[in-house]
Amino acid sequence: MAGIAFGRFDDSFSFGSIKAYIAEFISTLLFVFAGVGSAIACGKLTSDAALDPAGLLAVAVCHGFALFVAVSVGANISGGHVNPAVTFGLAIGGHITIITGIFYWIAQLLGSIETPIHSVAAEVGPIGGVVTEIIITFGLVYTVYATAADPKKGEIGTIAPIAIGFIVGANILAAGPFSGGSMNPARSFGPAVVSGNFHDNWIYWAGPLIGGGLAGLIYGNLFIHSEHAPLSSDF
Amino acid sequence: MAGIAFGRFDDSFSFGSIKAYIAEFISTLLFVFAGVGSAIACGKLTSDAALDPAGLLAVAVCHGFALFVAVSVGANISGGHVNPAVTFGLAIGGHITIITGIFYWIAQLLGSIETPIHSVAAEVGPIGGVVTEIIITFGLVYTVYATAADPKKGEIGTIAPIAIGFIVGANILAAGPFSGGSMNPARSFGPAVVSGNFHDNWIYWAGPLIGGGLAGLIYGNLFIHSEHAPLSSDF
Amino acid sequence: MAGIAFGRFDDSFSFGSIKAYIAEFISTLLFVFAGVGSAIACGKLTSDAALDPAGLLAVAVCHGFALFVAVSVGANISGGHVNPAVTFGLAIGGHITIITGIFYWIAQLLGSIETPIHSVAAEVGPIGGVVTEIIITFGLVYTVYATAADPKKGEIGTIAPIAIGFIVGANILAAGPFSGGSMNPARSFGPAVVSGNFHDNWIYWAGPLIGGGLAGLIYGNLFIHSEHAPLSSDF
Amino acid sequence: MAGIAFGRFDDSFSFGSIKAYIAEFISTLLFVFAGVGSAIACGKLTSDAALDPAGLLAVAVCHGFALFVAVSVGANISGGHVNPAVTFGLAIGGHITIITGIFYWIAQLLGSIETPIHSVAAEVGPIGGVVTEIIITFGLVYTVYATAADPKKGEIGTIAPIAIGFIVGANILAAGPFSGGSMNPARSFGPAVVSGNFHDNWIYWAGPLIGGGLAGLIYGNLFIHSEHAPLSSDF
Repeated sequence: MAGIAFGRFDDSFSFGSIKAYIAEFISTLLFVFAGVGSAIACGKLTSDAALDPAGLLAVAVCHGFALFVAVSVGANISGGHVNPAVTFGLAIGGHITIITGIFYWIAQLLGSIETPIHSVAAEVGPIGGVVTEIIITFGLVYTVYATAADPKKGEIGTIAPIAIGFIVGANILAAGPFSGGSMNPARSFGPAVVSGNFHDNWIYWAGPLIGGGLAGLIYGNLFIHSEHAPLSSDF
Repeated sequence: MAGIAFGRFDDSFSFGSIKAYIAEFISTLLFVFAGVGSAIACGKLTSDAALDPAGLLAVAVCHGFALFVAVSVGANISGGHVNPAVTFGLAIGGHITIITGIFYWIAQLLGSIETPIHSVAAEVGPIGGVVTEIIITFGLVYTVYATAADPKKGEIGTIAPIAIGFIVGANILAAGPFSGGSMNPARSFGPAVVSGNFHDNWIYWAGPLIGGGLAGLIYGNLFIHSEHAPLSSDF
Repeated sequence: MAGIAFGRFDDSFSFGSIKAYIAEFISTLLFVFAGVGSAIACGKLTSDAALDPAGLLAVAVCHGFALFVAVSVGANISGGHVNPAVTFGLAIGGHITIITGIFYWIAQLLGSIETPIHSVAAEVGPIGGVVTEIIITFGLVYTVYATAADPKKGEIGTIAPIAIGFIVGANILAAGPFSGGSMNPARSFGPAVVSGNFHDNWIYWAGPLIGGGLAGLIYGNLFIHSEHAPLSSDF
Repeated sequence: MAGIAFGRFDDSFSFGSIKAYIAEFISTLLFVFAGVGSAIACGKLTSDAALDPAGLLAVAVCHGFALFVAVSVGANISGGHVNPAVTFGLAIGGHITIITGIFYWIAQLLGSIETPIHSVAAEVGPIGGVVTEIIITFGLVYTVYATAADPKKGEIGTIAPIAIGFIVGANILAAGPFSGGSMNPARSFGPAVVSGNFHDNWIYWAGPLIGGGLAGLIYGNLFIHSEHAPLSSDF
């Protein structure tokens, strides 16, 4: 047999394990936010008509791009499972213990409950727009950290630019019909200058800077600088 | 001349050769299931109207993503031919013997006969949904094993996250209109929690866990742990 | 200045240079066949209506995928320019001599005149179908050789599965409405077995095997085995 | 804390820093030109109707492809931020000083004001066509230099063919309805030969050769050959 292992309970509470649960939580949130969001977005654009092939393709491309990124950003911390079935399949092959796998499941299921966030965004007003831009820019800058800025990025660094580009593609599919899906003050500044219309332009400064700053704080402190913490730290 | 070689019959029954045939069978099944499935899916969404450019793009993207993954997951075991014309072209150049190539053809042709499976899925009832989710999650977790968890993955590991993301994109194009194309209990759990609607939710636990577990059993035992078997093993 | 260099005439007739011209010819043919073909294909599907966003996306994705592959398969032989403007820009920077660049231009322009081939394909009859399948399977198996089977593939090998998948995606966008865009006997065999309909199935054996065999002959003999020829060979 | 650093003013005027600002300017221009352009292009094709899922997908894919390339071409010079929120997030984590970050912001915001260029292109006449082809071919050949021809390309070289293909995909989504989005004299030559129609064909020679030549001059002199300049150079 491949070697299913139950594991030791205390191993599941090491600092490294807890970082892995947080990474699974964030990766699953990013993936489900984009995936479910793309289906909601297509429904919004078509007044909830049945999917046609173009809508199916939009939803499929969004899931494909978003999962690729979610796996990439988790790869070096948790292995990037993002899915209880993947965790189960890897436990069957002995690549993760049963007990750590259970904590992975909990983190993934908690990360998947993003719909209340999406409901706020759906209100489309300035507050919904800022909240949406915070979340999607958090995802973008978190991807920049995990695939490019993290000194422990390893071979993920080779495909970092693809991951950074594709998280923006996925997030536009999820958020475009709600906030515009900018994630980038410059992307919104240029057209505003030329058109002379700066109405609502503050949304694309406030949201992205808050989201990007949060990603820097969380990733920078938890996943990069914490390496220098004593290994006996219990977080 | 490039050097066509007939080969020795007994070399074609080594343990390594038989693993290669199984890998070709699985890769071709995954590719044809997604590719043919995307054409069936577009037909279902449009009541079998003629393809328009959006439908053509959906089918082309599905084939492109699925073949990329099918080649990736077979690369280190069988070379990832997934196609009798590729096997033939490589035999012409002396990269595979005629006799091993014939077994590759048999494996590929057997793998291509997936349509009865797809017919079951087309019934859309709970059983069809579970069967579909088993197959497509098997493909996802098999991809995780072949490109990321296998210690012999080599340079395929660099593009593993792309392969894992894109098999999900391809499988949604094939299975979306039938089972929803979840492959992930968390992907279905979040929206169920928020909507309070857990009807049919068991499908997205049963199917993915069975499919993912099977992938762990098959890949883990056949392609990873079998390495430790005596080389004289005749399987 | 960056250093424009005229070059020596006899350097442009070395065996390596002539292989480079052939590689540019083939890469440009593959790229223009797919790119122009995708525009023709969208026109055919819509009775030559003006492009809508779905059609624009199909054409753009086809060009993007096809150029990626055309550059990949030429990279180690000619540098994969596939474009007189790229050759000119590289000559300005001193990365290719003027005189070799002129031969690159000639090879690229000759490779771009693929439309008569496409016209044959447009007839859609069995002959057009076989011719189309020969060309597109040649492109597929040539890609397998250049990115995966060639011992001199270098770092292109890391992205070989993506190139192999995406040439199929691009070729379906160009050839789907004409021959079906199979490139793979197994892809056509499975559905024929299940439906019991083998009418025209021979097209998807004859075309792909001829095209794949030609790719094996040309790439195997010209670009792989010729390495062992005496360097004084004048081809 | 992660370590925000203010930085020294004179460090922000080193030769390397100024090259980084120019790289950010060019990357942001390429990204915003394609991204904003794709939205304008979809509006043009549909007489400014509301986006449907196909249009949303076209815009999302264009942004995803273009950002991937913009990050790739800037990666080795400026880090490829292309976004004030990314620069801010990296400053929060201590990966760039505040003062250098401010200059990055200025470069990004200046690069984003591309809309006047796009307005010229929108006139669609021969002049608009040539200007458009100059810009988009500049982006293509700049990508060839930054990812493939630059000896300092590093691991970006592994994904160079993907970047080269995808900048063409993105630029067609932005420029297709305006100039045709050729970027390649050969791409336009073949169909002209077969149809016998060379009207306007000069546009696809003049534009791409000027754009490609400019990219060779700028990248070749500023980013490649300048390495040999004395380090005390103040540019």
